[in-house]
Amino acid sequence: MTTQESHDQTGSYVHAGKPFTRDMNYIDDRITADGSSGWQVEAGRYRLAVSRACPWANRTIIVRRLLGLEDALSMAVAGPTHDKRSWTFDLDPGGRDPVLGIERLQEAFFARFPDYPRGITVPAFVDVPSGGVVTNDFSQITLDLETEWTEHHREGAPDLYPVPLRAQIDELNHWVLHHVNNGVYKTGFAGSQEDYEAAYTDLWESLDVLEDRLSRSRYLMGSSITEADVRLFPTLVRFDLVYFSHFKANRQPLRTMPNLWNYTKDLFQTPGFGDTVDVEHIKQHYYVVQTDLNPTQIVPVGPDASILLEDHDRDRFETDTWGPGGTAPQPPKAEEVVDPAHTPLRVSGR
Amino acid sequence: MTTQESHDQTGSYVHAGKPFTRDMNYIDDRITADGSSGWQVEAGRYRLAVSRACPWANRTIIVRRLLGLEDALSMAVAGPTHDKRSWTFDLDPGGRDPVLGIERLQEAFFARFPDYPRGITVPAFVDVPSGGVVTNDFSQITLDLETEWTEHHREGAPDLYPVPLRAQIDELNHWVLHHVNNGVYKTGFAGSQEDYEAAYTDLWESLDVLEDRLSRSRYLMGSSITEADVRLFPTLVRFDLVYFSHFKANRQPLRTMPNLWNYTKDLFQTPGFGDTVDVEHIKQHYYVVQTDLNPTQIVPVGPDASILLEDHDRDRFETDTWGPGGTAPQPPKAEEVVDPAHTPLRVSGR
Repeated sequence: MTTQESHDQTGSYVHAGKPFTRDMNYIDDRITADGSSGWQVEAGRYRLAVSRACPWANRTIIVRRLLGLEDALSMAVAGPTHDKRSWTFDLDPGGRDPVLGIERLQEAFFARFPDYPRGITVPAFVDVPSGGVVTNDFSQITLDLETEWTEHHREGAPDLYPVPLRAQIDELNHWVLHHVNNGVYKTGFAGSQEDYEAAYTDLWESLDVLEDRLSRSRYLMGSSITEADVRLFPTLVRFDLVYFSHFKANRQPLRTMPNLWNYTKDLFQTPGFGDTVDVEHIKQHYYVVQTDLNPTQIVPVGPDASILLEDHDRDRFETDTWGPGGTAPQPPKAEEVVDPAHTPLRVSGR
Repeated sequence: MTTQESHDQTGSYVHAGKPFTRDMNYIDDRITADGSSGWQVEAGRYRLAVSRACPWANRTIIVRRLLGLEDALSMAVAGPTHDKRSWTFDLDPGGRDPVLGIERLQEAFFARFPDYPRGITVPAFVDVPSGGVVTNDFSQITLDLETEWTEHHREGAPDLYPVPLRAQIDELNHWVLHHVNNGVYKTGFAGSQEDYEAAYTDLWESLDVLEDRLSRSRYLMGSSITEADVRLFPTLVRFDLVYFSHFKANRQPLRTMPNLWNYTKDLFQTPGFGDTVDVEHIKQHYYVVQTDLNPTQIVPVGPDASILLEDHDRDRFETDTWGPGGTAPQPPKAEEVVDPAHTPLRVSGR
């Protein structure tokens, strides 16, 4: 997401004297296997609009990779920076998404809701035939990819949302959303010193809880990767790159938290995670778009992201990364490989 | 320093499209032992105006401590934040320096030069009888404290500027000034991405040189502390606290550079160094005053400065910290002790 729902008409994210509040009202349509929602799962019909910069979109890119949905569900990748009218397809030839034929994601929202009043956010599902947005409800999108799109999952796709664990995963995800995923934004966009300090304190208490939790198992739910890991990773991989400095989430670098940092490196080096991350897009987005935090729009050269490739110690835990019958995903399709000049990456097969 | 010579009449430090240039024209009067300069060294006659936030003033506070000049040379401590008219004595009762009787350091400059056009900077020597500034030439002030104020040095005062080493110290200091002390400012106040990247590259190349140099001796010039260490320390102790994030000097935290970080901790824990540092004043200054980098004026809670108290490994080198006949300074005078809520500090006697 990261856009108009977060800032006002003047492009401000920070409101003096006020804490940051995220508009959590999304278009809550769903795409379902049986079509009872009005939108039926169908290979080739929908396009997933993302930006690699955005942590909420990053989740969907990871899940699409892990489940091997690339052929059934194409992806429109917006550029990292945008203006008040939000995400644009400036990376594409002619500045237009080649499938949807639009310059701005806003056009897909307006195609369905001409007066759409809220944020033009990624991730969003777009119905290719009508050109209209179906949903931008980021919390539901990955769950539906896991449970409604099963017909199109690759052979060996992991079960990221196992039935016996769903209640626990939902509970953890809810907590992570408010205290960590959005906790960094509440810290960075606080409108007063008092709001900032409250958000900072809550964020670090939450990271301490996760640091402890990850001292006991390789992944959040145990020996296998689940949806819970997919939701935490995009925040962690952005932490030292952006949140530490830009959002003043700076008690200590994440790299000094042994379990959280080794877990971050572990996932980064796992196929389907690190290969979705564009470090340059991430830095460009936050430092160029959020001018009320960084009016110079100068983008830091550092920190050195190659440390994400250093050895980790997570092999010390019981491990069944992909779960029963699961296998690692294939490498990304050639046209979806992140520019190696943007992200230092050697993902080991596993 | 850190004031009007660095920003224009609108209070800007960053000038779009331009590199940062520091006005290095200071009032270059000197206070000498023989008085030939027109200003004779005399106990009680002068007042050293500083801010604990300012790295250039920090040097003079350290030298005054190491040489035991507290009784001969009193100190006026300005608050950490200031407006376009520069440093104020807002920490003092009634907002006036109790000796000079002024609210703003500007008054001392105007007392001598009614139309003084340049920056109102610390450190500055003020002549108490006339109330006028004598000099704000920071590069000369510490050298003169070391070589002209010898009559008032304490017993056991170290020789920080030994005659046989002066040429080497001068050469190193010149290089450190331009590439490191001011290098962080050139990085932070760059007016374009290109200027920023050039300054960043130069700064990190310079830090790599120092990292290597400090792999061979405990202090910059060998086994004893000299003026060269006094000049480097104020930049290093501010590095992770401020420059890493606020000035985007962020290839890596200084704490990940083994020699530079252990050296920083070593000096921090040495009497006369860490006891001059006010972490809160430092953070307040940069984040509140420099609104073109931090318009929200929110001051980060982190990073945790208590890591400056962790063990260091510098005892591995040949050590004669205070040089022949030298001893550690006494603890600071009660009225000059930094608020322990501002800086985590337990300085070991040495």
